[in-house]
Amino acid sequence: MTPMSLLTEIDGKDPAILGQELYRFAEDLFPICRSITGDGIRRTLSMIQERIHLQISEVPTGTPVFDWTIPKEWNIRDAYIRLPGGRRVVDFQKSNLHVLSYSTPVHATMSLSDLRPHLYTIPQHPDWIPNKTSYYQPQWGFCLSENQMQALEECEYEVCIDSTLADGHLTYGECYLPGKSSDEVLISSHACHPSLANDNLSGLTIATALAQFLSGRNLRYSYRFLFIPGTIGAITWLARNQEAAKRIRHGLVLTCLGDRGDLHYKKSRRGNSEVDRAAANVLRHYAGSSGILEFSPYGYDERQYCSPGFNLAVGCLMRGVPGTFPEYHTSADNLEFIHPAELAGSLRICAAIFDVLECNQRFRNLNPYCEPQLGRRNLFRSTGGGDSVGLETNARLWVLNLSDGQHSLLDIAERSGIRFSAIKEAATLLWESGLLAPLLEDGAEISGRKEGLQPDRTTSTPVSRD
Amino acid sequence: MTPMSLLTEIDGKDPAILGQELYRFAEDLFPICRSITGDGIRRTLSMIQERIHLQISEVPTGTPVFDWTIPKEWNIRDAYIRLPGGRRVVDFQKSNLHVLSYSTPVHATMSLSDLRPHLYTIPQHPDWIPNKTSYYQPQWGFCLSENQMQALEECEYEVCIDSTLADGHLTYGECYLPGKSSDEVLISSHACHPSLANDNLSGLTIATALAQFLSGRNLRYSYRFLFIPGTIGAITWLARNQEAAKRIRHGLVLTCLGDRGDLHYKKSRRGNSEVDRAAANVLRHYAGSSGILEFSPYGYDERQYCSPGFNLAVGCLMRGVPGTFPEYHTSADNLEFIHPAELAGSLRICAAIFDVLECNQRFRNLNPYCEPQLGRRNLFRSTGGGDSVGLETNARLWVLNLSDGQHSLLDIAERSGIRFSAIKEAATLLWESGLLAPLLEDGAEISGRKEGLQPDRTTSTPVSRD
Amino acid sequence: MTPMSLLTEIDGKDPAILGQELYRFAEDLFPICRSITGDGIRRTLSMIQERIHLQISEVPTGTPVFDWTIPKEWNIRDAYIRLPGGRRVVDFQKSNLHVLSYSTPVHATMSLSDLRPHLYTIPQHPDWIPNKTSYYQPQWGFCLSENQMQALEECEYEVCIDSTLADGHLTYGECYLPGKSSDEVLISSHACHPSLANDNLSGLTIATALAQFLSGRNLRYSYRFLFIPGTIGAITWLARNQEAAKRIRHGLVLTCLGDRGDLHYKKSRRGNSEVDRAAANVLRHYAGSSGILEFSPYGYDERQYCSPGFNLAVGCLMRGVPGTFPEYHTSADNLEFIHPAELAGSLRICAAIFDVLECNQRFRNLNPYCEPQLGRRNLFRSTGGGDSVGLETNARLWVLNLSDGQHSLLDIAERSGIRFSAIKEAATLLWESGLLAPLLEDGAEISGRKEGLQPDRTTSTPVSRD
Repeated sequence: MTPMSLLTEIDGKDPAILGQELYRFAEDLFPICRSITGDGIRRTLSMIQERIHLQISEVPTGTPVFDWTIPKEWNIRDAYIRLPGGRRVVDFQKSNLHVLSYSTPVHATMSLSDLRPHLYTIPQHPDWIPNKTSYYQPQWGFCLSENQMQALEECEYEVCIDSTLADGHLTYGECYLPGKSSDEVLISSHACHPSLANDNLSGLTIATALAQFLSGRNLRYSYRFLFIPGTIGAITWLARNQEAAKRIRHGLVLTCLGDRGDLHYKKSRRGNSEVDRAAANVLRHYAGSSGILEFSPYGYDERQYCSPGFNLAVGCLMRGVPGTFPEYHTSADNLEFIHPAELAGSLRICAAIFDVLECNQRFRNLNPYCEPQLGRRNLFRSTGGGDSVGLETNARLWVLNLSDGQHSLLDIAERSGIRFSAIKEAATLLWESGLLAPLLEDGAEISGRKEGLQPDRTTSTPVSRD
Repeated sequence: MTPMSLLTEIDGKDPAILGQELYRFAEDLFPICRSITGDGIRRTLSMIQERIHLQISEVPTGTPVFDWTIPKEWNIRDAYIRLPGGRRVVDFQKSNLHVLSYSTPVHATMSLSDLRPHLYTIPQHPDWIPNKTSYYQPQWGFCLSENQMQALEECEYEVCIDSTLADGHLTYGECYLPGKSSDEVLISSHACHPSLANDNLSGLTIATALAQFLSGRNLRYSYRFLFIPGTIGAITWLARNQEAAKRIRHGLVLTCLGDRGDLHYKKSRRGNSEVDRAAANVLRHYAGSSGILEFSPYGYDERQYCSPGFNLAVGCLMRGVPGTFPEYHTSADNLEFIHPAELAGSLRICAAIFDVLECNQRFRNLNPYCEPQLGRRNLFRSTGGGDSVGLETNARLWVLNLSDGQHSLLDIAERSGIRFSAIKEAATLLWESGLLAPLLEDGAEISGRKEGLQPDRTTSTPVSRD
Repeated sequence: MTPMSLLTEIDGKDPAILGQELYRFAEDLFPICRSITGDGIRRTLSMIQERIHLQISEVPTGTPVFDWTIPKEWNIRDAYIRLPGGRRVVDFQKSNLHVLSYSTPVHATMSLSDLRPHLYTIPQHPDWIPNKTSYYQPQWGFCLSENQMQALEECEYEVCIDSTLADGHLTYGECYLPGKSSDEVLISSHACHPSLANDNLSGLTIATALAQFLSGRNLRYSYRFLFIPGTIGAITWLARNQEAAKRIRHGLVLTCLGDRGDLHYKKSRRGNSEVDRAAANVLRHYAGSSGILEFSPYGYDERQYCSPGFNLAVGCLMRGVPGTFPEYHTSADNLEFIHPAELAGSLRICAAIFDVLECNQRFRNLNPYCEPQLGRRNLFRSTGGGDSVGLETNARLWVLNLSDGQHSLLDIAERSGIRFSAIKEAATLLWESGLLAPLLEDGAEISGRKEGLQPDRTTSTPVSRD
């Protein structure tokens, strides 16, 4: 029995159950008050560690990382705004979004007018609490709904943020799955947001599940999953792993993958790298209505991976595009905003992209002069005269026609308009029939063939008939 | 008197008469029961031989041709399904489509249920007989209309196919017209279909007429017309003519050129070869509504010419695209489906494409610094101030501006949006006026010019004012 | 205080006053009867000379200039068609368009039927007088309105054209403004049309104003303004300045810039030169509805600058495209057809194009590994969590991301979709912050930086907030 493609393995499971598993993990992670450092991200990583082999790194405050410095570690126990009578009108215990992340500690009594400059709301969504941060500018603040704000009366409030900002560490986790090649596929998710579901937890849960699915598989590439605080975490990892970064051949940042929006893929800075083309091919054939976005230097950690010194082939997969849906960075990005079916669907798309990366290679047509006679190999219908051949035969003709040593299977999928998995299956059959020889990446034929090496179906993608 | 362009010669004839001539030849060829071998294709070739110089080749059964082997030769005298009472309910004498081509001989009595697996119909067109083949899988069968099938009652039928399948030959014809260069233009038509008019006879008759028109002309390229059985014939010719194949610089497969559909040109695998661009230019300016199709490895013999080992610049010209119109490979592709005017129109398009190939070359502007003074050479209107210049003057300005040694006339036609023939005429006038020098294909100037060599109008294309 | 961008300087003036100044100069120039030689163009140039430093050249009749020869000089005092009774029915004193430019002298009495072949009208615009010329074909003629023509009765007319066509000179003017580089920006306007406002005077007045604005500025490029007769003037200048022509790096032909049509830029023959891209970027961001036209070899003097021997990067900026609006080359192209606001708007677009050319350069990001920390340099908002960053921050991120030594600021403007001036401002700020180093044109870093060279804001473009 040969291993299946990852997509086929996932499609063999009940999608409802798969979605529920992803969703439940998001539910478990939701209450934690994460930030770019501190016990919130530590607890998050240890819950991921229960599922996959995760190596945790702690980088001390003050460590220089390129142009940046690891900041002080921030932790918080409680925070509130209290009426003179004692009732909490804003209460961190009810939502950890109520505190400006990285707020310095404060405990004071002050008038509403003194308090007001420290308050953040979203007037156009009067029920929602915004999510605000001030990592590098020491200040304190509260986020609250516009309705809460309007209800505040002029009086002296007790204001308390029971936080600490002190030397400590920045924490991140990585899961490395070795493959045949030391070239790596990077999957990066940020883990620094408090109770936000789509923008944070959807990426974390899907990345964790992908690492689980890939563990123990016979892989072409090595896979590295990063669970890191946004921006400073990616910068820290890159600064400490410059040699490893050179081995990153393909990469995906995963974020906002649980909402009901169309899938979007934002290209890497290179714009036409293999992962860009793989993602475009997969979205076209598997995702229905979807969008391909050009690279821009604002966004998530692709900003760092695609900085000019690295210029890695790392794109970003998402549904709702950060900054374009109103729930983004508000209390409305909660557990009702993400859905099991969408989480499972996003996971499936990641798997299909990995399948392309794992299986994309070049072959040489061993009968390049005219078509080989497919009929006598049972690779063509036997009775002629019908008006067209099916997808399978068409895929075989395309693979034979373009396997001149220059075109990869992904090239062939793109030119033919046929989904990659069907092209891959055609190539495997033709290879098994002795009509193709695989080429090494440098274009040399794989020498073992003469000694009767059999096609290795380890990484092959059975045709998923859709 | 200088020879005309081929298009001008054809446009000098009455199109109704020209169309009738093409149509009548199709009528003569229609009744013959052709297949990929046998006396049907032999008789067809000998009728073509009455019109053009055709060299016939006979390749013995069993000869290896690349991955294939020449099959046994198939001939048929009669075939029928007879009622117990003696009436033929399916009769080869009424239509040679009634027999699955390459049917093995059979003479037996059998029940309808035993017969049924050998019967082919088209349920969605109950009056039409399909055209079916089984060249490489020995079997027998009958094709009939769905109505005939429905009328069959349960009884014992006498079933007879009086065919032979025996060692013999595969037959094909070629007509070679030598030109100044040994580089060739290939025109290929399949001649293996029984009584089908559009898919077979339209290509054969037009190719024959083109060979007649080109015979005796002063040609730049050599022309090779192939009349061959589809697939196996192209493979056989290529296997036996690998050196000649290297000389094929441009080529056209001709098929389905008599129906009332728009003209279509399917590009060669290269996608931007000179014949691809010539055909696109001609269709744009001469064919009204028409279509350019990307290459795909399924279709007619461009499949073989464009296999990766050859990768020849051979496209396919057609009206209805095989496999996309319902009459394709049925008895409805008959003499009523093709029309004299469409045959003549298709011939005209082929001629215009040949004109481009014959006349496309590069010139060098001998006054490259600013415009030469066209007015004193009577190549420009003398009174200024109007708001535009006409097509002729515009064509001259474009030729002068782009004749820097890099741009061919076809390049200039494409960039200017002016039809090739007008660009060619402008170049000829400018050459005659001493303003341009022709370049050899390697970019060298033609040395004879200094000795007063006159522009050779042999292959020039007079402006066809449209 | 650092010098402003040219656009900023112009935007600092009252556009109504600026437009009036341009318009009044056009009014002053309007009555003069210009042609390609003679006192009309001489008087025009001397009026320009009152405003800018203009060097006048006089080239004798008979001088060869490439394929052409300087023609005889033409001057005219009077012309008319007189009724037997003495009334002038066509009178040069009422409009200098009434005479076919370069008419040979004539004084005769003749019947209407003898006169008729010498008369030009525009039947579809019966009130308008056409503008006609016959520079190189000796003949005489009158231009008149169709209504005038219809009113002519059969009788003997006194016909007089009191012109001289004699050895003399061709006159042109040039204004050269030296910059740091000897590489030049060419601005070319024709000055050979009689009383036509849009096609002639709009270009002359705007070119004159541009030369005034640029005089005394600290310029990167040297600027050369040509005021020349169309065609023969450009050919003459190029023939006499072949070495200078090699230094022309960018150029604009200015014509038809005062009407109410959309702005149009016609690309140079190269099609993707820096001036082509600069003009496209400026029109996109500053001109509202506007058009980019492909190069064609018919038009104004870009025909000569873009002839294959020169192939200069010279495009043509205009509003109404010559030959496409009905007033073109008629008496309807008068002072009512051009408008102060449109003249001033066209001037502004030229300035913005010059700003791009002056400021386009490449930088190297000195912190290419990950983003530099913009926040601590006050180049980024300090409170995170909002849903997008503004144009300024975005421009900074784009400049940092693409400043890998390969991309110019114009490349970055094009890829980001942000207007050039905002990209330029971002680069200046980042340079001032020590995050970028400017590159020489050969890609070398400017060596002075280490010695503490400060960013030179001389040519910088402050953000024009729109």
